[in-house]
Amino acid sequence: MTALTSNLTAPDIVRCGYLDLVVTDLAAARAFYVDVLGLVVTAENDHEIQLRTFEEFIHHNLVLRQGPVAAAAALAFRVRTPEDVDRAEAYYSDLGCPVRRDRNGFARGVGDAVRVTDPLGFPYEFFHAVDHVERLTWAYDRMPPGALVRLDHFNQVTPDVPRGCEYLQGLGFGITEDIQDSDGVVYAAWLNRKATVHDTALTGGAGPRLHHIAFATHEKHNILAICDKLGALRQSDRIERGPGRHGVSNAFYLYLRDPDGHRVEIYTQDYYTGDPDNPRVSWDVHDNQRRDWWGNPVVPSWYTEASPVLDLDGNPQPVVDRDEPSEMAVTVGADGFSYTRSEDRQHGFKLGEQL
Amino acid sequence: MTALTSNLTAPDIVRCGYLDLVVTDLAAARAFYVDVLGLVVTAENDHEIQLRTFEEFIHHNLVLRQGPVAAAAALAFRVRTPEDVDRAEAYYSDLGCPVRRDRNGFARGVGDAVRVTDPLGFPYEFFHAVDHVERLTWAYDRMPPGALVRLDHFNQVTPDVPRGCEYLQGLGFGITEDIQDSDGVVYAAWLNRKATVHDTALTGGAGPRLHHIAFATHEKHNILAICDKLGALRQSDRIERGPGRHGVSNAFYLYLRDPDGHRVEIYTQDYYTGDPDNPRVSWDVHDNQRRDWWGNPVVPSWYTEASPVLDLDGNPQPVVDRDEPSEMAVTVGADGFSYTRSEDRQHGFKLGEQL
Amino acid sequence: MTALTSNLTAPDIVRCGYLDLVVTDLAAARAFYVDVLGLVVTAENDHEIQLRTFEEFIHHNLVLRQGPVAAAAALAFRVRTPEDVDRAEAYYSDLGCPVRRDRNGFARGVGDAVRVTDPLGFPYEFFHAVDHVERLTWAYDRMPPGALVRLDHFNQVTPDVPRGCEYLQGLGFGITEDIQDSDGVVYAAWLNRKATVHDTALTGGAGPRLHHIAFATHEKHNILAICDKLGALRQSDRIERGPGRHGVSNAFYLYLRDPDGHRVEIYTQDYYTGDPDNPRVSWDVHDNQRRDWWGNPVVPSWYTEASPVLDLDGNPQPVVDRDEPSEMAVTVGADGFSYTRSEDRQHGFKLGEQL
Amino acid sequence: MTALTSNLTAPDIVRCGYLDLVVTDLAAARAFYVDVLGLVVTAENDHEIQLRTFEEFIHHNLVLRQGPVAAAAALAFRVRTPEDVDRAEAYYSDLGCPVRRDRNGFARGVGDAVRVTDPLGFPYEFFHAVDHVERLTWAYDRMPPGALVRLDHFNQVTPDVPRGCEYLQGLGFGITEDIQDSDGVVYAAWLNRKATVHDTALTGGAGPRLHHIAFATHEKHNILAICDKLGALRQSDRIERGPGRHGVSNAFYLYLRDPDGHRVEIYTQDYYTGDPDNPRVSWDVHDNQRRDWWGNPVVPSWYTEASPVLDLDGNPQPVVDRDEPSEMAVTVGADGFSYTRSEDRQHGFKLGEQL
Repeated sequence: MTALTSNLTAPDIVRCGYLDLVVTDLAAARAFYVDVLGLVVTAENDHEIQLRTFEEFIHHNLVLRQGPVAAAAALAFRVRTPEDVDRAEAYYSDLGCPVRRDRNGFARGVGDAVRVTDPLGFPYEFFHAVDHVERLTWAYDRMPPGALVRLDHFNQVTPDVPRGCEYLQGLGFGITEDIQDSDGVVYAAWLNRKATVHDTALTGGAGPRLHHIAFATHEKHNILAICDKLGALRQSDRIERGPGRHGVSNAFYLYLRDPDGHRVEIYTQDYYTGDPDNPRVSWDVHDNQRRDWWGNPVVPSWYTEASPVLDLDGNPQPVVDRDEPSEMAVTVGADGFSYTRSEDRQHGFKLGEQL
Repeated sequence: MTALTSNLTAPDIVRCGYLDLVVTDLAAARAFYVDVLGLVVTAENDHEIQLRTFEEFIHHNLVLRQGPVAAAAALAFRVRTPEDVDRAEAYYSDLGCPVRRDRNGFARGVGDAVRVTDPLGFPYEFFHAVDHVERLTWAYDRMPPGALVRLDHFNQVTPDVPRGCEYLQGLGFGITEDIQDSDGVVYAAWLNRKATVHDTALTGGAGPRLHHIAFATHEKHNILAICDKLGALRQSDRIERGPGRHGVSNAFYLYLRDPDGHRVEIYTQDYYTGDPDNPRVSWDVHDNQRRDWWGNPVVPSWYTEASPVLDLDGNPQPVVDRDEPSEMAVTVGADGFSYTRSEDRQHGFKLGEQL
Repeated sequence: MTALTSNLTAPDIVRCGYLDLVVTDLAAARAFYVDVLGLVVTAENDHEIQLRTFEEFIHHNLVLRQGPVAAAAALAFRVRTPEDVDRAEAYYSDLGCPVRRDRNGFARGVGDAVRVTDPLGFPYEFFHAVDHVERLTWAYDRMPPGALVRLDHFNQVTPDVPRGCEYLQGLGFGITEDIQDSDGVVYAAWLNRKATVHDTALTGGAGPRLHHIAFATHEKHNILAICDKLGALRQSDRIERGPGRHGVSNAFYLYLRDPDGHRVEIYTQDYYTGDPDNPRVSWDVHDNQRRDWWGNPVVPSWYTEASPVLDLDGNPQPVVDRDEPSEMAVTVGADGFSYTRSEDRQHGFKLGEQL
Repeated sequence: MTALTSNLTAPDIVRCGYLDLVVTDLAAARAFYVDVLGLVVTAENDHEIQLRTFEEFIHHNLVLRQGPVAAAAALAFRVRTPEDVDRAEAYYSDLGCPVRRDRNGFARGVGDAVRVTDPLGFPYEFFHAVDHVERLTWAYDRMPPGALVRLDHFNQVTPDVPRGCEYLQGLGFGITEDIQDSDGVVYAAWLNRKATVHDTALTGGAGPRLHHIAFATHEKHNILAICDKLGALRQSDRIERGPGRHGVSNAFYLYLRDPDGHRVEIYTQDYYTGDPDNPRVSWDVHDNQRRDWWGNPVVPSWYTEASPVLDLDGNPQPVVDRDEPSEMAVTVGADGFSYTRSEDRQHGFKLGEQL
């Protein structure tokens, strides 16, 4: 049993950096991420493709790696200094987690790095050294209508959200928003290092699994353009949920599923969270504007499906069920379990309590 | 039994002009149309409110009238000349329809007009004389983020769409788009006089009923702003469907329900249809991008619910069921009954034919 | 001397259809119109390229034709019926204008057509028969961020605007807006057949010359994307004026210059003008928001430069100067000659009258 | 003579927090900032108004204070901890600067704070304690079309930019972008603490003066809406420059002048700069896309005019001229002094060197 926190100094995490993703059909994945979504290819060979967003200057934000099982191989965070890689190694060793270090990097373009299986069962990587590549911020001649300009965040499924929060807060993450009920059950939490709503989020459910990776666009119309393009390509069934406005984060969003079923969010316009006393926003799980500010329903697959994650040997991690009530069970398909206006609460909770 | 077409010269219809709508709670309706949607009040008293869009120069596009039953009292079309009002009177008299003429107008601000109960059972009005009011095209200091700038169209529910099309084509309407199946069943049709996709549409179903009235915004973000505002007002349950991109018309859309349940569409960016040989677009009812280009499902209420319409004495018209299959029955909730890509068609139709 | 109007029935013009444009370097023109602006190639060979907008269904909206002198060879209008081509031939013959008819069409894809040198010295074409091509309304997979979706209008420079208006009104055009001064001098007028602000405009100045051709985008951000792309291509000097908001027409605009100096406007969101009593908007030439609603200055080249037009033998038409004051002379560079608010008028006019 | 840097620990600055601005007509200033720009009033009395942006949770981002001379009284930065206020006091005392501390705060809503006259002559404030107020992130029912959602940055005019950079780097600022010429003359620099392009910028010129304060919108259309509203209010002469796309920062921008002539920028969509090795972007002063990516000219007033700043006793600071060439002198109005494409450089520099 690993510990959740250590007395050692945690590595100073700057931000989420890239996702190492195993896909079962690299050509199909390339068609989706490059031809449809327009991510920029930094490097590629027969086995893997390194992709970045238009405003990125580090080597990549996404590695697509051909493999036997569709899964997330690593959620990689950039740390502030080379010494923070040492700190990461020490920190997770102290937690009793499996730790591997590769001074040549686990991915092309990335240098000295540590990969761990963290206390929640997720494969985290910490790196500082990375090749700089051309930042295409001004490359408007190359941007499609739905240009993805930044990696925004990861979202992880874990059975026990408060336990996950304790671990991530030990690592230096702050909590910006969460979803709770009146009994104190926490259904999800959003945690940040950079000054946005999150670098990663914890979604309560059977885990460890990767819920999604999210890329940012400049504006809302860019996200609509991705929908329109998917329609034109007769790939509208790649759209799982949205577009819509989140309650949590206030961002405009769209959820897609890639050819392997990996979920990709397109996301824009959350808010600044960089002050030390940034106010946490707690949403009631029965507030039906929490997940979609316009009250549009969340599809069941969004709650139930997610990608396996791998251990350091490349084997899928076993998944543990959530003990507490699931957000879907308490909200989806049950008319009285949610409310839009506060005066509806009595009604909503009454029915909800009949569970 | 009335005829569908006449040999007399039809009135030269310029465009849809305004809707005369009975609401059961005028204050609630005002709160929705004025305070939330931001329509401009041209005139109002205790019994009725005349509203217009920002780029309108005629007196109103919508009359809200307090009454006992929520219903549409008239769908009013503007005709080119005063003589076209005479032509309308003669045309419908020749069809054998109930016809009334009021040289002082049926609504404040409107002059000499004819109201009829048309062969489909709908209350149509034809007017030319109308007060000009300030056109607020440049009044950016008064426009909310979701400013409604034009009345775009009506949408009517009628059991027999081809019969309705024959009638409207006799009146000079063109068909711009329709939804059919491979057996030739027509589920809906879009008909125009002005050079947009429609001034009115016929939706197959129990009728005569008014499906919705649609107002146009300048851009897509204006529609999103209406959604965001409804969320902020905790009125997100006014949103019935959307926002989304239509397949038919290519417009960006949102469907709302007013406090009486009348449906209002917010709509933007369909295309020019003014050439005499404008190509008609026919959509397969099993193409699940026809109603939403992104493949998002149509909610059942959108198919089944609509507003009663009144006869010339103000009594609700009896509703006649549709004999042919309903679009909802052949498409909603049945996974195999729709397809996105043409190569799916065989599969889609095979299951569909099992009906 | 030709007459301005005829008692014969004028052809029923539907809309502006295409521009036949002579360029001196076809490859350079292609690079601009196709590679930068993203117009769709319908057909091309070594001598000419036919281009269309994304929502167009007729063969082309622009012909680029290699030639010795950069000039406009024809401003082509679509007429409602084949017989309207006959009417055009008769109408202009009756006016005493040079008239040529080619039953095989003057351009690939276009059938029976008449070309004339009109009373103002412009080469007008009238055609009805035209090949239909794929309408790319839904082709979001092919559209660039600044997709041009419609031909919107022409703009012609002519010395005597009221004279030009008399001629065009005889042809059935309506006047939607104009710019005048308090002495009744007319500086420019906007004239329409389709239900937008214009199919063509008359700009007072040495003429006949073509001031510009205008293409429409869906939204304002599409126009900004064209600017951004030109910046990325280091072709920002193609931008002559804008982007901005017009006072006249209320449209959002951008003026570009092609490699030959031909001016192209990108334009979006003017308003509906299809009613027979559409109110005309007259702007005071001293209102400095008339040309740019934000008061940004008009660059001198925009006033003074324009493209030659050709006669029916392909020779450039001689240009006649304007007798009345030029808009630039009374407004540009003289601080007191314009006003923003009506209370500034006294001051503005006082200085202006010192001219 | 004060030092530029100290060996003491600099206060940990989180971000720019608010501007304390003296206006000569508080009612006129309120009409501009509240009625036109829509900033949210947190508190006000007859002498001062505290305003905030929609996504702000601290008490205010702008204080308008009635006074005899239009000037900036303080540029206030938020620091991470209460102890950082102590550090600020010690740091500036060590530099030999005038320092004042008010444990009750210099402005309502703000607690313990230090104000200094810094080595460049600017009045800087450092505060941590501040009242939290309602964050109106989700208040879409209150937002105008051009809602200002964040304070983005200050911009200061100072004669010697490298000297200013040395001072600010000592305070912990990073340089994200600058404008230089081939002789190494630095014309301007952008410096950040939060992960955007800047919290403040240094513009070379006679100083100390405040060049502008900048507020952020969500999207570009919000900025265009402000222009449109100013036009509708017949206040278009409040627009000094833009809207446009910056080269530096890649942001979309607009510059306004308030009734006292204070300059306000509206700004959106720069890029993430939070990595420790964020690449600095240097622009050539002769690149005419550096200030406007579309090559539109910078008006002279933008270069020459700025607001006085006050010393700790409220007296305007004397202004010192810049010794090095001014950006305007080497670029404005001289056709050959700028280039768009790199192949133009030889030509551009040749002429430029003739100065």
